[in-house]
Order: sequence, then structure tokens, then C-alpha cells
Amino acid sequence: MSQISSIAVVSATSRVDSTTAQIVAHYRDMLERNHGCSSELLDLKELPLDFLNAVLYQKDRNSHPGWASWQSKVNAADKFVFVIPEYNGSFPGILKCFVDALQFPRSLRGKKASMIGISDGTQGAALAMSHFGDVLNYAGVTTLALRPRFIEVNKHWDGQRFSNPIYQNLFEEHVKQTVGM
Amino acid sequence: MSQISSIAVVSATSRVDSTTAQIVAHYRDMLERNHGCSSELLDLKELPLDFLNAVLYQKDRNSHPGWASWQSKVNAADKFVFVIPEYNGSFPGILKCFVDALQFPRSLRGKKASMIGISDGTQGAALAMSHFGDVLNYAGVTTLALRPRFIEVNKHWDGQRFSNPIYQNLFEEHVKQTVGM
Amino acid sequence: MSQISSIAVVSATSRVDSTTAQIVAHYRDMLERNHGCSSELLDLKELPLDFLNAVLYQKDRNSHPGWASWQSKVNAADKFVFVIPEYNGSFPGILKCFVDALQFPRSLRGKKASMIGISDGTQGAALAMSHFGDVLNYAGVTTLALRPRFIEVNKHWDGQRFSNPIYQNLFEEHVKQTVGM
Amino acid sequence: MSQISSIAVVSATSRVDSTTAQIVAHYRDMLERNHGCSSELLDLKELPLDFLNAVLYQKDRNSHPGWASWQSKVNAADKFVFVIPEYNGSFPGILKCFVDALQFPRSLRGKKASMIGISDGTQGAALAMSHFGDVLNYAGVTTLALRPRFIEVNKHWDGQRFSNPIYQNLFEEHVKQTVGM
Repeated sequence: MSQISSIAVVSATSRVDSTTAQIVAHYRDMLERNHGCSSELLDLKELPLDFLNAVLYQKDRNSHPGWASWQSKVNAADKFVFVIPEYNGSFPGILKCFVDALQFPRSLRGKKASMIGISDGTQGAALAMSHFGDVLNYAGVTTLALRPRFIEVNKHWDGQRFSNPIYQNLFEEHVKQTVGM
Repeated sequence: MSQISSIAVVSATSRVDSTTAQIVAHYRDMLERNHGCSSELLDLKELPLDFLNAVLYQKDRNSHPGWASWQSKVNAADKFVFVIPEYNGSFPGILKCFVDALQFPRSLRGKKASMIGISDGTQGAALAMSHFGDVLNYAGVTTLALRPRFIEVNKHWDGQRFSNPIYQNLFEEHVKQTVGM
Repeated sequence: MSQISSIAVVSATSRVDSTTAQIVAHYRDMLERNHGCSSELLDLKELPLDFLNAVLYQKDRNSHPGWASWQSKVNAADKFVFVIPEYNGSFPGILKCFVDALQFPRSLRGKKASMIGISDGTQGAALAMSHFGDVLNYAGVTTLALRPRFIEVNKHWDGQRFSNPIYQNLFEEHVKQTVGM
Repeated sequence: MSQISSIAVVSATSRVDSTTAQIVAHYRDMLERNHGCSSELLDLKELPLDFLNAVLYQKDRNSHPGWASWQSKVNAADKFVFVIPEYNGSFPGILKCFVDALQFPRSLRGKKASMIGISDGTQGAALAMSHFGDVLNYAGVTTLALRPRFIEVNKHWDGQRFSNPIYQNLFEEHVKQTVGM
């Protein structure tokens, strides 16, 4: 807590024009403005075009130049924020593919992470965060207990910040607890 | 139960030369030999090379010729068997990507599915099947209660069948219950 | 489906004056009125006063007269409905105690069950039903895929039925699917 | 980490003569011998005889003298170890009853916990710890990522310590990480 952490914020979908990516941008802005913390962006939309064929579940993936920079950024971070949209009642498949491609166990073991869940419906990615929390735990990552569920997000997000002050306060509390963990 | 089902067996990884694919082949053979059931193979290793960029989370994915045949096969099946290897304490990311690409809710709602979990370690994909069971349930799929966990699978699999008779009997019981569900 | 099922409806809390018990009464009424199905009531509030000391985790529990009638009712039912309030982010502890006291595996194996989740907050017992679904699955029970989450239930329940027609329709659909499973 | 923690070790079953209680005793001994940490014992077998009727889900439970001492011990602890046997594929019901009886949220919020899972079978309480981890997370508790699954425990436990050195080493590593979290 007294050391400077290197924080990476993960936009956990590869869908274009996602609300998730907007919320990630706001998260990084809050880290900077409220806490003076710069952060690394890991936007899964930017994974190499041949990720599925040349990286995922490939033994020689670490020599893939487009992937090597992702692995390096993960190695350099000691704290992760995952902004997770709910897809089919769980996390997006691409998020687990990303984790599956990382070197195990050195990429994540002993590090820290927090999660935020968003959904258009009313579940708020509760199961998504339970499932992904199990994955993080398996990887040896300590997770923040506070896991906000932003339900019916499109009613409460104006493109740049939460229009609902309860959501915005909870969001800023999450940023604060993530910095402090 | 009295109607002929159209069964699709899903090899839930895109890793090459997987034990999973071998077990899938044995499953389809047991369906045929023990029960006279032909089945469709859905091997995630054969997903279109541009699946990640041209299919997943793309609005126009249904016009992609390489994907359209996958969607058609899913539409035609009314029962699914998922052979799920444990990756990072859960199911392979590519399995969820596959589900995320399907038309919702018509692809799966009201259908039936069973799962088998395998792992080199001792967990046997317990969490993987719990997580993926939640996904199937969300999609409106009724799942078979019997979810065998084949732990330390490489000690008990000879490339064509389980060398451990307890495993082989449980496997054949699962095939039988899947046919009967 | 063509056979007459013996349905037991479980009020999954021992709290007095619970909304859960009211919803259970409505469920049984809908079974009767909409489908002509009588049902057995299993209200956990009525467990023997010495359940914790003389039944739970006791080897000789089956000779306990107050418990024997519970075990008999479970044996006689082939389909269960669990109305589950969310307590501390999961199912009530007493629900799992009830299952823990049943004879294993004969009490539940091969039977069917459905679940309804309710909460004052916005989670709607999503995790509760995922957790308890794992328990039912372990016990060999086939569960209905439809698992309604009635969130902020006290805003939408008038003491006798759901005042919100979306809730009431979903509730009646659940009754119908439970009868038909 | 630099402050002295007050650790409570929870024996998560009320079954008499349990292996769980033996392992709890060994855990407390290792805390003392390897790390000089005294600890509080919370053995669920010792819950008040009228816990179910006079405490659980009762509004006036805090005036129950037999329960008040439990609540006080929980209030005084800032770190918890849960030794969890697998019952019916999840945690024992009595463990959740214990949590349900605690004052919310002050009892647990902001505190830390670790878990150990044991089973006679091969699952090793994997699902039990996933489920109870969700409960702890909901309560605002940070959990240790290392969650050992001691499978087929009765083959590897001699009544006082693990006869299997792999198990014993993992156990002592868990004690060490719990002290250091």
C-alpha cells in the first residue's frame, strides 16, 4: 500500500463501440484525477488480429510480436481492474481467452485485482464476477471484496460518466478502494 | 425421450492434438455403438480463422459463410454434449466465445445438454462445469445432473478409451443418461 | 410428463412472517387453480425444535419422530419447488441444513426441481440459485432452466400476489414450466 | 501486516468427532508454533442448543446470552480461517446459519479470511469454497487466493497431522500466508 502500484485497467470485451470501453476511460481518468495514479490500458478490442490462430493455446505464442507486448504489460502490472460486461449470464469469452493466453503462473500470481460488473439487464454481472473471481483466485490473485453491479447501465450512463449519482459515488468508492488495496 | 434427438458433441477447446478431441471421438463412437445414435461433431478447433475479428461480437456475423454452417448445425441440434477441459480453473475461453457468437435466444432455448469435465490435475473441471452450467441455464438449456469429473485424465486415458474401468463405466453411464434425457 | 407428479413446495427460510412463505402459498394456489395440481408444503419454519441438536449431522436422526415425517414427505415427492430468499448473498443456511439432514442419495436422486429467487435488493438471489443449483445437481436432481429473480420484491408484492404484472406473468410461467417439466 | 492480528479459526461443522475439528486444532497449533500467533476457536459444534429457535433469523438474538459471546468473539477478530468440510457438494448448512446470525455488516466488513477445503471424495470442497467465497465477498471480506483442497482426506490425515508430506507442506504454507495477509 505504501509502494507505488502499476495498475492496468482491462476493457473486458472486444466488441466495438462498447459502453465498457467508455467506462474504462472514465476509470482511468478517476485514477488520475482523484488519486494521481497513471494506469496502463489493456483493451481486448486491440488484441492481435490472428490472436485466435497464432496465440491462443499455441505453444510458441510468446514469440508472436503482437502478443509479446501484451504479455509484457501484464508482467509489468501488479494490480488489475477488470470492467466486465455481462454476456450470456457470465463474462465475455474473450476475457477468458486473454487469461488463457498468459504465461502461467508468473503473469498473475501474487498480484491484486478488482472488478466492476455492468449489464443492460438487472443481473449486473453477478455471476460473471463470481465466475471470473474463481479464475483470478485460481491464478493466485487477491481480489477486492467490493464488486459493484451496475444494472441497466445504459439508463444511468451518459457516455462520459454515470448520470445516476448513486452509481457515480459507488464507482468512485471502487476506484478509491482499488488504489488502497 | 421417445423422439429421435439430434445430438451435437462439442469439443470445447481449439488446442491442437487435445485429449479432449480424442474423448469426443470416443463419445460419438459410444453413442453409435451402444445406442445407435449418430451425432454431429462441433470441434472448436475448426472455427473460421477470422472468427475473432469477423464473427465474435459482430452484428453482421450471420452473413459470414464460414460461421453460417456452425449456426445451422446448432439450430439443427436439440441436444448437446460438452466435453470440457479445465483451463485456469474454469472452462476454455473459446467455449464461451462460441456461445457468445450464437444467435440468442433461439439457438439454445428449450434444448438439453450434458457435460463431462476433464483435467490433468485433481479438480476435474468442477468449477468449469458449475460456471458453464450457469451459462447454459441462462440460455434456457436443461442440463443433465450427472457431471463426471475425470481427474488426472492422462493417467487414465490410453488415447482411445479410459484404461481405468471406473472411468470407462462412468463414461458409458453418462452416454446412456444423455441419450435418455 | 404424462404421469401425475407429486410436488412439494419448499419455503426455504425459518424466519417468521416471511414474504417467502406468502409467495409459497401463492405458488401452491396457482398450482391448484391453473393446473389442478395439489402439492405438499415443506415450510422450514416448522422443522423440529431440536433439529439442530437431535437431527442435523446425527447418525440416528431417522428415528427422530419429528424428523421422520419430513423425510417421508421428501421420499414421496418426485418434484420440488424451492422459493429461495437471498440471505447474505446466497441461500439461507437453514435450507442447506435441511438438505444435509436428508438421507443420501435416495432422497433426491433422479428427481426434478425448480427454483425462484427473491430479494429486497437488486441481486434477486442470482448467486443463491447458482449455489443451490450446484447442490441439487450434486444430489442428482434435474433443475428447470428458468430461474426467475424477483428483485426488490417488497415493492412488487402485495401480500397475496405480485402487483407488478411482469412479475406475476413470469411467476405463472414458472408454475406452468414446473408442471410441464 | 505490521499490526498484530486477532485470528479466529472456525470449525465449520457441528458434527461430533469430526476430522475438521482435528484439523482446526492442528491449524491453531501451527499458528502458535510456527508463527507465535495465539488464536480464538469458533467451533460450530458449541453453538447454543437453542440456536435454531432462539437465535437464527430472530430479531432479538443479540440479547441471547449464549449467542452474545459468539458475536463478541467475531467482533474482536479481524482475520478468520474457515476449515470447511464438503457436505452435499457445498459447505455445511450450519456454516451459513452461523453467518446469517451475525450482525450485518459490522461483523465482517473490511476483515480478512482464508479457507481450507477437505473431503473424503475427490472434489476437495472446490464448490464449497467458491460458494462460501461469494458469501465472504458479499460480506466485504478479503479472502486469501490460496484455497487448498485436501481430497480423500482420511487417507492422508493421521488424527494429528497430515501423513502425506505434500499435504502437510501445503497446509503450513497456508498458515504462513494467512499470517502474512
